Amino acid sequence: MAEAGFDVVGIGNAIVDVLARTEDDFLVKHGLDKGMMTLIEADRARELYDVMGPGIEVSGGSAANTLVGVASLGGNGAYMGKVRNDQLGGVFSHDIRAAGVDFRSWPAEAGPPTARCLIFVTPDAQRTMQTYLGVSVELGADDIDPVAIGAARITYLEGYLFDRPEAKRAFVKAAELAHAADRKVALTLSDPFCVERHRAEFRHLVSGHVDIMFANQAEIESLFEAADFDAAVGQVRGHCEIAALTRGENGAVVVAGEEVHLVDAVPVERITDTTGAGDLFAAGFLFGLSQGRDPATCGRLGAIAAAEIIAHFGARPETPLNQLAAAAGL
Amino acid sequence: MAEAGFDVVGIGNAIVDVLARTEDDFLVKHGLDKGMMTLIEADRARELYDVMGPGIEVSGGSAANTLVGVASLGGNGAYMGKVRNDQLGGVFSHDIRAAGVDFRSWPAEAGPPTARCLIFVTPDAQRTMQTYLGVSVELGADDIDPVAIGAARITYLEGYLFDRPEAKRAFVKAAELAHAADRKVALTLSDPFCVERHRAEFRHLVSGHVDIMFANQAEIESLFEAADFDAAVGQVRGHCEIAALTRGENGAVVVAGEEVHLVDAVPVERITDTTGAGDLFAAGFLFGLSQGRDPATCGRLGAIAAAEIIAHFGARPETPLNQLAAAAGL
Repeated sequence: MAEAGFDVVGIGNAIVDVLARTEDDFLVKHGLDKGMMTLIEADRARELYDVMGPGIEVSGGSAANTLVGVASLGGNGAYMGKVRNDQLGGVFSHDIRAAGVDFRSWPAEAGPPTARCLIFVTPDAQRTMQTYLGVSVELGADDIDPVAIGAARITYLEGYLFDRPEAKRAFVKAAELAHAADRKVALTLSDPFCVERHRAEFRHLVSGHVDIMFANQAEIESLFEAADFDAAVGQVRGHCEIAALTRGENGAVVVAGEEVHLVDAVPVERITDTTGAGDLFAAGFLFGLSQGRDPATCGRLGAIAAAEIIAHFGARPETPLNQLAAAAGL
Repeated sequence: MAEAGFDVVGIGNAIVDVLARTEDDFLVKHGLDKGMMTLIEADRARELYDVMGPGIEVSGGSAANTLVGVASLGGNGAYMGKVRNDQLGGVFSHDIRAAGVDFRSWPAEAGPPTARCLIFVTPDAQRTMQTYLGVSVELGADDIDPVAIGAARITYLEGYLFDRPEAKRAFVKAAELAHAADRKVALTLSDPFCVERHRAEFRHLVSGHVDIMFANQAEIESLFEAADFDAAVGQVRGHCEIAALTRGENGAVVVAGEEVHLVDAVPVERITDTTGAGDLFAAGFLFGLSQGRDPATCGRLGAIAAAEIIAHFGARPETPLNQLAAAAGL
């Protein structure tokens, strides 16, 4: 085990977000699936960027956002994800390190550019994501740092990455390393379409390698091909130790062995942009778990972190989350 | 004259801003001159970026911000400024075009990278700027598009650019082209240190080539080496047709021939970041002038645009300025 050890180490697609406000009819005109994440190729990314309004660039990436949240709560985190040695790769690397996360990956010297995600934010604060993955998907088993995994209480895997054979091998390797070191493995299902494409393998991963699972309603229903949320919750037990299931403004349900906890969403004065809500819920929850808190308290920490992120543009916290947690008496 | 013609064409340093919140003691520790713009070299930029907190990237550049403001007010604008064919150059080009400004410059295929400005925003909403100019300063007389200048009611020059011999020649060329086409020339002094470095030449430029001058208190006092603001205002007359002199929350003074108008600042609920306040004041003022409005109304339009920009992070408007102008009955 390395000196200090980590509370959480995350593995995911290293992405810079490009956010712009847009109207609903823009989504219709350009055939964008509202509220969803769609993978796009370089040409389509160029085409959509051309018609997109003026943007702001903020580092993103689902697991990266989560690890920044963990750091903001006072946790000790590390991250692995692939960028190129280009300007956006420099931005990503700078921002995650500046947020206090140990970024354990070297930028690639060749190959496609750093990934970017075009995020169209509609007036209802919903985000519609179009992701060009660039070099991020070239992360493979060789990029998994066994020292960091062995030194982390929890290894957190981003489901988005679980699309290519190399990344799947990286996931299994990371999970095996973590369990060999008697550590926990967490996974977020990330996206209902991703679950649909790889349902059997996801189920296998969840049953065989995952201790803590994060999913929203659409994802968990897709995983179990359940008729409704209640049926999905019924199926979760036995598949993993803890499942944290989020439902937007309806709060979250935490299933931990025989316990079921209902966690209310933390009210927000004005929801500006829901980008990163799930990522930050996971941040609060994982930080809590790494500190040995009970599942209900972990859920409350998740709700606090999610509320901070949806009150402003972008998926990285603007107010130190440890202050918000302290203010809530946690 | 080109088909439609332009209300305003701007020439300036094409820059991408990197904004991060910071505490005052950070400025002290790293020897940064609070509230000022300091030019830095590539090494220092890297060094400062390394210690800077997580940032967001937003297109900036003083005259570019102004032209985006003109477009947001419903004006027809064009812009000339130099970027590289790198990722930040792509961001700059996209954002200014997406804002509705005709970007008349091709990205350079070689040379230093696109300029960036590290902006440290303190809790009092003051911005401290550290600018690495990169390729932007390579703009020269050959980059001035005579067609655009001849087609624009007002040609707007950014004083920041007035530092290198090539750019000075570009300024004089642009002014001569504009006057030959019976058009107006506007200049912002941009920065008191820039004025100090080139005082004699600035005075010559203002007296010989400039019809409309923008300056804040420190800049106008520096230009005339005046003891105080009142003395500087006294000296302005005769040097140019119109001078718009801004004083932050104390509003602005517009001197137009024998007329002197006092323009109140528009109150803002919470000042978040003063980056771009002067740029957007110029936007409102120039748009008004291009529409034939009287100097006092131009000043009010400037105050409205400035109030929008200081209420949020970054120097590009988030609310369409034409809506705000209409709401104010202008």
